[in-house]
Amino acid sequence: MGIALKETGQKADNKSPIEQLAILVKDELSQVNDLIAERMQSPIGMIPDLAAHLVDAGGKRLRPMITLATSQMLGVSGDKPIKLATAVEFIHSATLLHDDIVDGSELRRGKTAANRLWGNSASILVGDFLFARSFSLMVETGHLGVLDILSKASAVIAEGEVHQLSVIGNVDLPINEYMTIIEAKTAELFAAAASVSAVIATGSEQQQQALDKFGRSLGLAFQLIDDALDYSGHDDLLGKQIGDDFREGKLTLPVFITYNKADTEAKNWWQQVLSAETRNDDDLAKAIDLINQSGAIEDTLSQAHKFALQAQASLEIFSDSPIRNCLMDLCDFLVQRRS
Amino acid sequence: MGIALKETGQKADNKSPIEQLAILVKDELSQVNDLIAERMQSPIGMIPDLAAHLVDAGGKRLRPMITLATSQMLGVSGDKPIKLATAVEFIHSATLLHDDIVDGSELRRGKTAANRLWGNSASILVGDFLFARSFSLMVETGHLGVLDILSKASAVIAEGEVHQLSVIGNVDLPINEYMTIIEAKTAELFAAAASVSAVIATGSEQQQQALDKFGRSLGLAFQLIDDALDYSGHDDLLGKQIGDDFREGKLTLPVFITYNKADTEAKNWWQQVLSAETRNDDDLAKAIDLINQSGAIEDTLSQAHKFALQAQASLEIFSDSPIRNCLMDLCDFLVQRRS
Repeated sequence: MGIALKETGQKADNKSPIEQLAILVKDELSQVNDLIAERMQSPIGMIPDLAAHLVDAGGKRLRPMITLATSQMLGVSGDKPIKLATAVEFIHSATLLHDDIVDGSELRRGKTAANRLWGNSASILVGDFLFARSFSLMVETGHLGVLDILSKASAVIAEGEVHQLSVIGNVDLPINEYMTIIEAKTAELFAAAASVSAVIATGSEQQQQALDKFGRSLGLAFQLIDDALDYSGHDDLLGKQIGDDFREGKLTLPVFITYNKADTEAKNWWQQVLSAETRNDDDLAKAIDLINQSGAIEDTLSQAHKFALQAQASLEIFSDSPIRNCLMDLCDFLVQRRS
Repeated sequence: MGIALKETGQKADNKSPIEQLAILVKDELSQVNDLIAERMQSPIGMIPDLAAHLVDAGGKRLRPMITLATSQMLGVSGDKPIKLATAVEFIHSATLLHDDIVDGSELRRGKTAANRLWGNSASILVGDFLFARSFSLMVETGHLGVLDILSKASAVIAEGEVHQLSVIGNVDLPINEYMTIIEAKTAELFAAAASVSAVIATGSEQQQQALDKFGRSLGLAFQLIDDALDYSGHDDLLGKQIGDDFREGKLTLPVFITYNKADTEAKNWWQQVLSAETRNDDDLAKAIDLINQSGAIEDTLSQAHKFALQAQASLEIFSDSPIRNCLMDLCDFLVQRRS
């Protein structure tokens, strides 16, 4: 990838930073998993069934881990970080349920998407349920500031999704507008997941801003890696199909970069293929070929590295500690992941 | 309708109680309308466009009026009731946007439903946006208790919707289970709209419970009248088509009452027609005929009256005042409405 990230923390026992992080917040993460299971319960059986299908499929629990880790870094213990981390995961889950309808996705986390099994209506309503439960969890922390951050973040996420919806197929979209979209739809929740810790720690405004910047930069890096992997990863590692973004006509950074560098003939091809109703495997093969020729994957990864460095820099105001260093290592790790 | 409601308040100037109420909270309602317009704004134009299509179509603004009126009754002025009333209307609007997708509705408030114009995806996401904005408005009141009530209510509403979805077409559903569903999907928001006023008034637990009971009973009465009107109202007054519930296979109290009184032949007809993919105008005509013969409309209206009386009784702990008496009159009025 060619760009050196700052050397941080110790690499203990050959464990990846995400595994190290999971060890550092092990007890809390286990409590979060219990609380997730508890708060998705309802006498209406379809709700826990559908929610469990998504939530038990796991995912990386990256967002709640960020809340737990930043809370620990700021010296907060007790049930507040647990409740907040669960609230963050519920917002994320609600968003995924609604997104899978919007995107017409067939797979999520390697399993059939919930809306394909229970129908769109149930997925909409269970998303609403999880979103509501998430706010009840925040209320239990007793901090209005938390609700302020996460309600605003939720509005920004929805705005980002609508923004993306309104430019589907528009390959002439300026790259900075694309970055605005992913900052809203992905990075905003990472920023909120980190900065709420400063609220329950009654930390300084400077700490809250630093955590916001950390989460935001990490979220952008994370999304750009996702964008790159959709054209360069492996189906079995990804838990979804390669080229999903392309098939859905969802344009991402590798496509914008390739398009901007393309000659007229290639530009015409992109416009045609992206404005069509559907795209087949041959279209995808050609798209991957053009993307590889243009060096757009490397450019995308390089952008991701830049944001990872910013995320690391944001943590420098906090005292040196195993958890801080592990978060710094996580920035490296997330841009090097292959799934 | 045969059931006398308690005589309350003065009937001034031949105005209906809802018009009188609108006069008593006129300034506040105007501020709510301004705040609605302000807070549905977004740089993503599709959001205010879609939201305005629904929200400007008006509706009765009944739920925000309940918040404004109960706040006034408890002596609260200033911007808190305005913000809360707007939050309540946003939750209601978000629910309508999602419901119209779930129900496959074609009309809402006499206009083409938003999802028919902008698509389901946009309606899902704008609903999410309004829901998130609603919580930000609550945060601005500075009262966690408000967020507690409305986040729990939002979860209960979603539960009620999923519950309804899971029993679609099941005409053997016990009537008390149907009442549980409408209490969740409709009455819960009325209860919350009223009881949040006790929080910002720092009223007693008894006041909060009385307001909850008032809203809950009024909401049940309101829903049962809706149920009756769907089989006995007039298209041009309703702003939607007669028989929408029936066409969508959505079972309501008049159907359950009729079915429970029916002989085997009629029971078979109901089961058959309600398990079919679609229902035509002849089916509707026969359903209306059977419902009228069974006296189910009168029974439904009588139930609605019972709840209206309970709503009035809940207000008796509050001192006599024009606004309290107007709320009592509103209970009468809502069960006598024809649209």
